[in-house]
Amino acid sequence: MSLFTKEEALSYHSSFPKGKVEVVPTKPCRTQKHLSMAYTPGVAESCRAIHADPDKVYDYTNKGNLVAVVSNGTAVLGLGNIGPKAGKPVMEGKGVLFKIFADVDVYDLNINQPDPDKIIEFVKMLEPTFGGINLEDIKAPECFYIEQKLIEEMDIPVFHDDQHGTAIISGAGILNAMEISGKRIEDVKVVVSGAGAAAIACCKFYETLGVNRANIFMYDSKGLIHAGRPDLHESKRYFAQKKDIGAMAEAFKGADVFLGLSAKGLVSKDMVKSMGKFPILFAMANPDPEITYNDAKDARPDCIMGTGRSDFPNQVNNVSGFPFIFRGALDVRASKINETMKMAAAKALAALAKEPIPADILEAYGVKELSFGMDYVIPKALDHRMLEWEAPAVAKAAMDSGVARATVDIAQYKKDLRARLDASRKRIEAFAGSYGLEF
Amino acid sequence: MSLFTKEEALSYHSSFPKGKVEVVPTKPCRTQKHLSMAYTPGVAESCRAIHADPDKVYDYTNKGNLVAVVSNGTAVLGLGNIGPKAGKPVMEGKGVLFKIFADVDVYDLNINQPDPDKIIEFVKMLEPTFGGINLEDIKAPECFYIEQKLIEEMDIPVFHDDQHGTAIISGAGILNAMEISGKRIEDVKVVVSGAGAAAIACCKFYETLGVNRANIFMYDSKGLIHAGRPDLHESKRYFAQKKDIGAMAEAFKGADVFLGLSAKGLVSKDMVKSMGKFPILFAMANPDPEITYNDAKDARPDCIMGTGRSDFPNQVNNVSGFPFIFRGALDVRASKINETMKMAAAKALAALAKEPIPADILEAYGVKELSFGMDYVIPKALDHRMLEWEAPAVAKAAMDSGVARATVDIAQYKKDLRARLDASRKRIEAFAGSYGLEF
Repeated sequence: MSLFTKEEALSYHSSFPKGKVEVVPTKPCRTQKHLSMAYTPGVAESCRAIHADPDKVYDYTNKGNLVAVVSNGTAVLGLGNIGPKAGKPVMEGKGVLFKIFADVDVYDLNINQPDPDKIIEFVKMLEPTFGGINLEDIKAPECFYIEQKLIEEMDIPVFHDDQHGTAIISGAGILNAMEISGKRIEDVKVVVSGAGAAAIACCKFYETLGVNRANIFMYDSKGLIHAGRPDLHESKRYFAQKKDIGAMAEAFKGADVFLGLSAKGLVSKDMVKSMGKFPILFAMANPDPEITYNDAKDARPDCIMGTGRSDFPNQVNNVSGFPFIFRGALDVRASKINETMKMAAAKALAALAKEPIPADILEAYGVKELSFGMDYVIPKALDHRMLEWEAPAVAKAAMDSGVARATVDIAQYKKDLRARLDASRKRIEAFAGSYGLEF
Repeated sequence: MSLFTKEEALSYHSSFPKGKVEVVPTKPCRTQKHLSMAYTPGVAESCRAIHADPDKVYDYTNKGNLVAVVSNGTAVLGLGNIGPKAGKPVMEGKGVLFKIFADVDVYDLNINQPDPDKIIEFVKMLEPTFGGINLEDIKAPECFYIEQKLIEEMDIPVFHDDQHGTAIISGAGILNAMEISGKRIEDVKVVVSGAGAAAIACCKFYETLGVNRANIFMYDSKGLIHAGRPDLHESKRYFAQKKDIGAMAEAFKGADVFLGLSAKGLVSKDMVKSMGKFPILFAMANPDPEITYNDAKDARPDCIMGTGRSDFPNQVNNVSGFPFIFRGALDVRASKINETMKMAAAKALAALAKEPIPADILEAYGVKELSFGMDYVIPKALDHRMLEWEAPAVAKAAMDSGVARATVDIAQYKKDLRARLDASRKRIEAFAGSYGLEF
């Protein structure tokens, strides 16, 4: 069932050169003249120009295309607190995805530091070097405080993908699911299994999309988040119901939306059966969802069902977000990734799902036909059009909301993006291909 | 006279893609299977393996080939405290040299931080990610404290190149100059102009090579470093003479060695004339030395004269050191770059200068003949043999002195290195070449 064996996955990482990324000069370095420009004495011209006008750092260095993926390894994938060394393959992998999907360069920084205030200090020092910061796999609740402080105190975008990536992509799905099911977002009752970073960020984002907070029933391992519990961090308390209504099965009765960011098998067919008309489920526990696609459809053929899996419809995969969101933010030198920009990304994704799918994409999916509907509420994770839809939408939102420090002509930008990515992919393929590795 | 115009040097940096380095995937990323191994779910196999045995981080990530070039931009080239943004082109350039000369990958981290203790905290957090730390362009005296603390507290090599690079390469020159001039290193009188990081590190290194500290006369902008001065940082006080003997011209009388790490024109022909037999001068102020090659030779035809310049004999250029020193240290997973390793690097360089020069190198230098002697005491900066001479010497010294955590077979390693670098250069040339830039 798996696409690869354990041995293949390990040898993909350990074959020469070890790891997954390399830092390569982009300018000619063949002659003495080249080296005299790359380093002393010629490099001093660029130094002087930046010293005279610090903004020129975007002209003479790679800052404008460089993102730091920062993690302390305390909440890596479903593996938990495995530490920064064991987390490094994930962060390198994140860099690979940033590059492959949006030509963004990443330095992965896996740091030996549990203390949130020390992490904040560390990241703040990075500001001169990077165009943006992607926080990754840092555990809740620390991640909320870290991100919030950094957003306030830094002049470049700071984005904790574990929170907002899932929120934006599932949010796009929910917007479209509303339309298909004929529901009004203001009215829906939402049941949430899980109260970690992603669950909380999703619910906050859904609130900005129109969901009424009083209609959200969030469960952690101890039961419903409600005002009577003395054990709640403020991030959870924000979603506290006034009273405990009992087990999650109770909340499911008549619910419109289920959001799963917890663990395999926590939702039964009976629970799904008890939901309202055209129920919407995003059961995103990885790799095994809270309820399988087949069981959910069996219980309720009228449901709209998404998971984190690529082998079932409506895959919610963060790779549909972060590369393009950062691409757009970097290209207008945004100082933040604000709510307007996140919303623009979600709406762009939602709109793209309604577009006819070109033949080459259908072929890549191995299907003859696919169109907007219950089993296709969000674009598939490898839809190459997301670049041209999302990045310009984010760039435009940054300009419109006053956080951009450079402007682009959106129509031209859209065209340039595709050409840029195609050239980058070709270059990377030739480079990686020159190692002669086959997997 | 310059190899390039200002406009060329700027456009070398600002042409697309801006800056000088890019982060490129090294593994195939064409198919869904590839991506499933690079990121979730396949990446989890590597995470689990490292979590079970943290040393496996060297097998499944790029840590073992990755160096952080860390700078706060407080002492950049001859430009001074221009800050981390203006310093970034230099640090990217350093990364280019590491890659071109030794296939070492660099993340340049230009940090917004003047406080030494905060810099120490920052760098310590990087330990899980990197195989080594190159501190760069951090001003004295803070740089001594920062490096010392980090060496004590970290488990990977920490090397402040401004200090030790110059020391090792000029040290190699001094060893050979002793031989040519028939001097005994224990007896030589040394005059030093400058008392910054490089000057102090050079003198400490010369001490380990055999120079008697009592014979070192070090001058800063206020005169001789001597015990009667109340204004001395401990790093300078270490070299204090008991009594002031007056201006530098006094010290020059009968001196054997001059070391210049200060400013243009501080040394006159008369001062050189007053030196002992076969005087040795390393006048390394950049770009203009304390005394020009021609003036020194005019004053004393029997002198051995080196500068920082590529257009005169005996160029002392750090690029003859750091790429190969780190290469050797990384390949045996050294925990430090200790004195034994630095000494091994200097001795390897000194020995290489006595080897016949192959035709291709002579051709690259545009000369018909060149051999060990007054005008060739150290290999030229772009001698490609340095890789095979220095890196194995450093690796062996690490193994012999007990700081290596992996072993290599030195003879085989020497052969593999050349093949590795040739392949890397070819790959890089094709990659950078695909941008179609001409300079």
